[in-house]
Amino acid sequence: MGYIIRQIEVDDYAPIIQVVDAWWDNRPMASMLPRLFFIHFQKSSFVVEDGGKRVGFLVGFRSQTYPRQAYIHFVGVDPSYRNQGIGRLLYLRFFTLMREWGCTEVHSVTSPQNKSSIAFHQRLDFTIQPGDAVLNGLAVTTNYDGRGGTRVLLKKSLTSEDHY
Amino acid sequence: MGYIIRQIEVDDYAPIIQVVDAWWDNRPMASMLPRLFFIHFQKSSFVVEDGGKRVGFLVGFRSQTYPRQAYIHFVGVDPSYRNQGIGRLLYLRFFTLMREWGCTEVHSVTSPQNKSSIAFHQRLDFTIQPGDAVLNGLAVTTNYDGRGGTRVLLKKSLTSEDHY
Repeated sequence: MGYIIRQIEVDDYAPIIQVVDAWWDNRPMASMLPRLFFIHFQKSSFVVEDGGKRVGFLVGFRSQTYPRQAYIHFVGVDPSYRNQGIGRLLYLRFFTLMREWGCTEVHSVTSPQNKSSIAFHQRLDFTIQPGDAVLNGLAVTTNYDGRGGTRVLLKKSLTSEDHY
Repeated sequence: MGYIIRQIEVDDYAPIIQVVDAWWDNRPMASMLPRLFFIHFQKSSFVVEDGGKRVGFLVGFRSQTYPRQAYIHFVGVDPSYRNQGIGRLLYLRFFTLMREWGCTEVHSVTSPQNKSSIAFHQRLDFTIQPGDAVLNGLAVTTNYDGRGGTRVLLKKSLTSEDHY
């Protein structure tokens, strides 16, 4: 790939906010990405560029409650750059850094409707965590967002050897 | 005061999300408070209780980009418990912990329309940061949220002696 991956910067904020809803099939996602993540979690958040064009990003951090846990908050890839390994590149860069920081597990949350996100995480050895309900055979956590929204909780160990 | 102050817990999430919009004069604030803050930033986030009833909370963290900076993301106080020092109690508890962690400054962001928030911060020795525009005599940062929203940036030094 000719892509480069680098740490996120605050100057990435406005251009990414302008495209993020479109990248998510016009779902209103921008409110999930306040500027604070682009200021205070730069070390563990990354942008992929293709010839200076931002084509993907990952926002993650290390838990301050559980220092051995890392958390991936948000990932976006330009729809015209999908299925080229950009999401994988972002996740692997994050895993590497979190191992360096001494984390032993990575957590992430997705929607039960987002089958491609669930499959993507499973290919990277995330497992679906037990929840409080089962939806179409999927363990889910109800009212995760405090407003009735159900989510799938995903977890990956960083200690076992990667085989993907 | 008969109030107690304690670290936030994940079990505080659903009850707080249910009231937070009402506490903010029915503005839609809940989307600014994803559950992640109640999971991964418990050490630096606090709840005030009055006889077991949650009457105020603060969500803050230490910057992972700038380890000497602390950031206050969100504060809410039950309207029927205002002007009793609950906000101040939450901020002072946060300042104390951030000093223990070695932080030298605290940042916060508010809306230019929120005069009482600006005055509250100024009473706690926050100063208004230079911005890129002036609105009714107030230094503001335009397009802070990437969607055209203007904000007031506030900063307090933790190294000078407190005199409030």
